[in-house]
Amino acid sequence: MKVAKFGGTSLANAEQIKKVCKIVQADPQRRLIVVSAPGKRFKEDEKVTDLLIGYADRYLQTGEGPSEKRAIFSRYREIVLGLQLPAEVGDQVEAELEAVLSNQQGLSAERFMDAVKAAGEDTCAKIVAHYLRHLGEEARYVSPLEAGLFVTDEAGNAHVLPEAYEQLATLRDWSGITVFPGFFGYTKAGELVTFSRGGSDITGSILAAAVKADVYENFTDVDSVYVVNPNLIKNPVEVKEITYREMRELSYSGFGVFHEEALIPAYQADIPVCIKNTNNPSAPGTMIVSEPPASTKRVSGIASDSGFCSIYVSKYLMNKEIGFGRKLLQILEEEGLSYEHTPSGIDNISVILRERDLTQDKEQRIVERIRRELAVDDVAVTHGLALVMIVGEGMRQSVGTTARAATALAAAKINLEMINQGSSEVSMMFGVKAEEAERAVIALYQEFFGCEEELSAQAAQVASTTV
Amino acid sequence: MKVAKFGGTSLANAEQIKKVCKIVQADPQRRLIVVSAPGKRFKEDEKVTDLLIGYADRYLQTGEGPSEKRAIFSRYREIVLGLQLPAEVGDQVEAELEAVLSNQQGLSAERFMDAVKAAGEDTCAKIVAHYLRHLGEEARYVSPLEAGLFVTDEAGNAHVLPEAYEQLATLRDWSGITVFPGFFGYTKAGELVTFSRGGSDITGSILAAAVKADVYENFTDVDSVYVVNPNLIKNPVEVKEITYREMRELSYSGFGVFHEEALIPAYQADIPVCIKNTNNPSAPGTMIVSEPPASTKRVSGIASDSGFCSIYVSKYLMNKEIGFGRKLLQILEEEGLSYEHTPSGIDNISVILRERDLTQDKEQRIVERIRRELAVDDVAVTHGLALVMIVGEGMRQSVGTTARAATALAAAKINLEMINQGSSEVSMMFGVKAEEAERAVIALYQEFFGCEEELSAQAAQVASTTV
Repeated sequence: MKVAKFGGTSLANAEQIKKVCKIVQADPQRRLIVVSAPGKRFKEDEKVTDLLIGYADRYLQTGEGPSEKRAIFSRYREIVLGLQLPAEVGDQVEAELEAVLSNQQGLSAERFMDAVKAAGEDTCAKIVAHYLRHLGEEARYVSPLEAGLFVTDEAGNAHVLPEAYEQLATLRDWSGITVFPGFFGYTKAGELVTFSRGGSDITGSILAAAVKADVYENFTDVDSVYVVNPNLIKNPVEVKEITYREMRELSYSGFGVFHEEALIPAYQADIPVCIKNTNNPSAPGTMIVSEPPASTKRVSGIASDSGFCSIYVSKYLMNKEIGFGRKLLQILEEEGLSYEHTPSGIDNISVILRERDLTQDKEQRIVERIRRELAVDDVAVTHGLALVMIVGEGMRQSVGTTARAATALAAAKINLEMINQGSSEVSMMFGVKAEEAERAVIALYQEFFGCEEELSAQAAQVASTTV
Repeated sequence: MKVAKFGGTSLANAEQIKKVCKIVQADPQRRLIVVSAPGKRFKEDEKVTDLLIGYADRYLQTGEGPSEKRAIFSRYREIVLGLQLPAEVGDQVEAELEAVLSNQQGLSAERFMDAVKAAGEDTCAKIVAHYLRHLGEEARYVSPLEAGLFVTDEAGNAHVLPEAYEQLATLRDWSGITVFPGFFGYTKAGELVTFSRGGSDITGSILAAAVKADVYENFTDVDSVYVVNPNLIKNPVEVKEITYREMRELSYSGFGVFHEEALIPAYQADIPVCIKNTNNPSAPGTMIVSEPPASTKRVSGIASDSGFCSIYVSKYLMNKEIGFGRKLLQILEEEGLSYEHTPSGIDNISVILRERDLTQDKEQRIVERIRRELAVDDVAVTHGLALVMIVGEGMRQSVGTTARAATALAAAKINLEMINQGSSEVSMMFGVKAEEAERAVIALYQEFFGCEEELSAQAAQVASTTV
């Protein structure tokens, strides 16, 4: 069986929900459906989740929020009308939503907030189930409480409990289509708690792992993942297949397709993930898998992220001092800083950090501590760095990937501030000045995908001529 | 003034000592002379220091060591005879040596060992002073005790005390030539202690710093430092000038010209060091300086060292875990291991260690602890790695050094297991399989010095034709 999760734009209005249900009907394997709350219908539109948060904030301050509530109800009413569902369906759905919104029922502020936010997905799931039945399918909505999606008691940031998987596994045996609201679960005490924002991806991944799905389909609004940010390169090469590790390395530096935590349950249960487009379901999409295909490409993607800085420390004979590196990292930890990388020479080491974490105060204190406690010769902070990454399983097997990358960057006159490549070689990382990062990505794209792009452009032309 | 230190081969016999004294006489600035103990006269010969250690071992076990003692006396007698010094000089030197060797005088075993070892340099210094006087120079031997070379009380591994410098500074005002035995000093209580093996380099460096010498000349048996190991490349390019930092990076990986600790006093006092050849004193030698010359070459040297291994650790979302790297290094520290480098990807990190430190027991324990305490997805140890380094101040200013190096290595079909280059860029480090290290060094030498080698060969030909 397949678990199919549909994102906010896929459920933004009745038209989109019709597409979703057509997709569900098209494959009898799609028996477990996870839905987000309706997203934006157009660029300036508000997501239902944002409307709900605005409402809850107002309600907690003033005990009411009539205009915010009206906006929410109108979004759902529009959908129910557009789907031509019977009036009593609309009434029932609205009554249940009203019960959540208008009654804090002795809930704490954060519990109420979670309950209101979750109503976005919950209501949507009910409507989708109604519509599938309306189309003649055997379909039912299921509440995460009934299904047993148990989570930790962290408001707005729940994590699944291990015992949930056994409960949820029984969903596999249900007949027909089950529609499951994303984004939230229940504590063992039966209280509703949501995942972190974007958490419907997490729900889908948990369900896919629990029912041991053949594939976890994640429907969004792009045909596939691209090898490079489409804002930098027009019509970039599509990624057909990518491994979890590659996806994770790419998402580190600006690939925002997927909620970071969402991959974990699927990864651990070894369920392949397929990113597909609700608006173009016949496109093959991008598969995320455990093992790279035999014919793996050397390079799967290129990404970059700015906002890094480096703390460079040098000390003569540092290398002979046991514990030096550990002491340096301890200072950072005591100052509450997490670090990213630590490239090193013999008597020097650089610590790469996210710039946002290093306030001016902290910087000064850390530099002083390093000077005083570690008796170093030199310590210097460089701001405004970017990391540019080439990601690809099996780059390791390829003599010369480094040479090609470094040559392309040199030809583009980009100076390398840092290079970091561990023995995994899923990725190769270049530190460059932030203002050179875009040029670096473009140069690397041309080097590794330039030809392919031309070929696929030709293929597209041939295809369109044939039509 | 200049401090000139002469190594063991420069003092191996009377002929060599004559060369040394000729060098000293050739420059009136050479007023403070540091000598080692006589070294090997031919490949199978024994160094006097080794004879002394053998003698002391025997004496401590049996209370005597007549054959060992005879060998020592015969080395010095041969030198005194060869220098045609008066018989009473020989008698006096022998009597003083005998006094040290034949009387433990209530010294502990390790104090006795240090005293006997030190007699090698001490006797040599006395003979050289005698010979310089014999040649008509104003010259005197000085004892480190009289001069005030105070050191810590660590038998066989002394370190200079800060207060020594003030005492030793007065040597600057002495008239004539002062001959100073290398390798040992005295505790504040007046007890003799030696530096670690090869420590005459340290004595020279300390004296040069104390008297604020214009240069510290270190005479050995090679014309200069070479950009690459001469055992790998025939007649490699000579290094004319190199910085302390470059020297240190190179000595990390197989450049054995100089005692590692010996550079510190000179480095801290900013005294240039000149490596020269006793057997060819007119050759300019290699200068070690603080600041790279303006016309610095991009690459100053290429070195490699094997005997490394890596511990690869991966964990999904590791990168989001504050303190992960520090905890990993803490485990190594608790197991008494010092590490060399830690290249990292997003969710993985490799720790590069010296293989000799990682016993099978330790390896097993560390792998288990990493698995258990850090709950990682994967941990793997790879043995048999070598690090190949390109060293050069100012590589940073050169777009393309990485590209050239990586391209040369790729052309030689050498796979890179690791790359590490911090923001200092004094060095660039490539991890390769140990069996590929030699080929890697040769490929890099050809890339960065190949042309120059041809040019200098042509120049040599022109020169020889002219003669």
